Amino acid sequence: MKKKKPVIELLIIGSEIVSDPSRDSNSHYLTDKLLEEGYPAHFISFVGDVMADIAGSFELAADRADVVLATGGLGPTPDDMTAEAAAKAFGLPLVLDEKVLKQIEEVFRRRNRKMSESNRKQAMIPEGSIPLKNKHGTAPGIYIDFHDTDVYLLPGVPIEMKNIYTDTVLPRITDRYQASAIDVATMNVTGISESALYDTIGSFPGAKDAVRYYPGPEGIVLKIVTTVDSSADAAVLQKKICDTLGDIVFSTKGENLELVVGNLLAEKGLTIAVAESCTGGLIARRLTKIPGSSRYLLFGIVAYSNESKHTILGVDRKLIEVHGAVSADVAAAMSEGVRKISGADIGISTTGIAGPGGGSEKKPVGLMYTGISTDDGTETKKLQFVEDRLINMRRMSQSVLDIVRYHLKKK
Amino acid sequence: MKKKKPVIELLIIGSEIVSDPSRDSNSHYLTDKLLEEGYPAHFISFVGDVMADIAGSFELAADRADVVLATGGLGPTPDDMTAEAAAKAFGLPLVLDEKVLKQIEEVFRRRNRKMSESNRKQAMIPEGSIPLKNKHGTAPGIYIDFHDTDVYLLPGVPIEMKNIYTDTVLPRITDRYQASAIDVATMNVTGISESALYDTIGSFPGAKDAVRYYPGPEGIVLKIVTTVDSSADAAVLQKKICDTLGDIVFSTKGENLELVVGNLLAEKGLTIAVAESCTGGLIARRLTKIPGSSRYLLFGIVAYSNESKHTILGVDRKLIEVHGAVSADVAAAMSEGVRKISGADIGISTTGIAGPGGGSEKKPVGLMYTGISTDDGTETKKLQFVEDRLINMRRMSQSVLDIVRYHLKKK
Repeated sequence: MKKKKPVIELLIIGSEIVSDPSRDSNSHYLTDKLLEEGYPAHFISFVGDVMADIAGSFELAADRADVVLATGGLGPTPDDMTAEAAAKAFGLPLVLDEKVLKQIEEVFRRRNRKMSESNRKQAMIPEGSIPLKNKHGTAPGIYIDFHDTDVYLLPGVPIEMKNIYTDTVLPRITDRYQASAIDVATMNVTGISESALYDTIGSFPGAKDAVRYYPGPEGIVLKIVTTVDSSADAAVLQKKICDTLGDIVFSTKGENLELVVGNLLAEKGLTIAVAESCTGGLIARRLTKIPGSSRYLLFGIVAYSNESKHTILGVDRKLIEVHGAVSADVAAAMSEGVRKISGADIGISTTGIAGPGGGSEKKPVGLMYTGISTDDGTETKKLQFVEDRLINMRRMSQSVLDIVRYHLKKK
Repeated sequence: MKKKKPVIELLIIGSEIVSDPSRDSNSHYLTDKLLEEGYPAHFISFVGDVMADIAGSFELAADRADVVLATGGLGPTPDDMTAEAAAKAFGLPLVLDEKVLKQIEEVFRRRNRKMSESNRKQAMIPEGSIPLKNKHGTAPGIYIDFHDTDVYLLPGVPIEMKNIYTDTVLPRITDRYQASAIDVATMNVTGISESALYDTIGSFPGAKDAVRYYPGPEGIVLKIVTTVDSSADAAVLQKKICDTLGDIVFSTKGENLELVVGNLLAEKGLTIAVAESCTGGLIARRLTKIPGSSRYLLFGIVAYSNESKHTILGVDRKLIEVHGAVSADVAAAMSEGVRKISGADIGISTTGIAGPGGGSEKKPVGLMYTGISTDDGTETKKLQFVEDRLINMRRMSQSVLDIVRYHLKKK
């Protein structure tokens, strides 16, 4: 029997997610992982903790999709109602699964904690459904074989969901359904606006349909998505775009800029130290997110006050008096100071006015300077951002890391 | 004529959002602001940049909702197709609006940049629709009066969307529709698990239907949502919960912990300095996100290497040799060191193993120590986290800020 390509729907459940989708990372993980295997998701619906809405969404999903992946609402509180809603939608009674109950009790015993009465509910599953082992939490996943639709109920906690997806769900999907031949090529670009980027590459053959633009404060992600029917070949188009854009493409493997910079530092055996004023620790934070960053990040200093710029970094008080803390001279001195006291190969600094307060006509909100001090000497750069405090900080951290990247590429 | 309560649907458009809903903040902003005014959203749909999907979603939304708020897809590139899809769905031709075109040209003139040919498309709107002035960008919002449904097309860029929403959309909604009497009470809680919290307050009268639990690494947000038909009164229930939970409620105004700590510091005229190892700058970063934090955060140090713990913070090399960098003694010395060199009233520190590498049987991944040094002396606390690197860091930063909060409340 020839296998078919499935229609896949994600059903993300939880009022907290309907009122703030940024709380959900599961839909991103699932669409991404599914696409990697050649299974694009077709529909994603977000639904709150309302029994009728969830049950209705299950009915709709089972109607139009071959595979339904639901996440969330398997917890112990009354606003967790996914199992019950699925049971309603598919006309199945909820039954207590003794084996699941024992597993939940065992989790609490291992953690040396008393099981809450409310956790008992997590052992209630739709009759005839199959519990899916959850190594990391109390609630099992649940598989329901409803007529022609495979319905998977997964926990909302990412580590639990991912584990069940990898161990149980994906093997079942690849076993039952045919994958599409999809090519995805990714490029991460920084230092160009979306419309300038489009004017540069938008007219390349096949680009109109295949290239997607995802702009943000940390640069633009370009994705080329092609199938066997597409007029473009992802790899060919990617090469043409990379050749045209040159160095502003900082990754073709979906890496963020801190990872690229971190890898360059590790590869070249160089160390870095950071002195931050207006970015308030964001650059250090981005670098320390990378496992193993202790190899190259010697330390970071958030030198917010003028006094600390002097005391810790050794910036001359006069320099601050004459030029102001927000100046190229102070940025240079900060980068030199942090390099000197750390003994790092590269010292970088930021000073500026993130906003919303503190601006003047001469030095408006969003004005920022960065310094980079190395064996080759010290360079500074002036930047002007125009958005709110947090976005200005993020754009600045991106610009500074990019300056470090350009420096490292020459080494 | 008696006004009705509207059914409201949000339609969030963009493949980048379907593949990563965390990129979208607009749906959160809109549901939140609408609820504040007494207009709860009923449906939120995320749809990718596929003409047929967007047009179909518009048809479905116009069918079931009185007010449709769509965001995204008004940009200049070919994957921006919201205006065209709406025109298709509602059977209207797209026409060039000369006035809008002039406005777009004017934006580019002001910015001293040449208008891209691709921006011309942003002046194409469905016939008979009304462009809504966009102070912050090139694309106008668009209002379509389709039979009994008000359809608003808004830009995806948050500042542009918010401005048009506040200036034009909200006044139109309040003018045409009746608001529901909704009470929302919020509490931010930290230092308790979701199930323990539910066991404590879940049986309070009316709590079952009214209380929503939103757990995360930065504590649990509790929301009480009641209407005139609810069995509970939000304010009464909130008071009972606050009285029962006591100090673990750190805000009843939706503030995050760094803002609460920052406000306490400002109020009491105290200063703080931070020495971070395992949290890698996250605590400094959280504090500097708050505008005006330069008043109380003297500085932060990301002391990743043992050497920097000694050189900058003055931690005795022997102490590190004898107890290891991840120890209560080193945490204490770091907090004392950063307090001393900064002259701050409070010095706090973190040292630990964030993971994934670096753990041992005696000191497993997730083991962390914090120190707090003040006039009253130095205290340390040992914590054990069990998740991945980034979550461990976030939970630790939350625990440390909470220790600072408890200290400040006593002052």
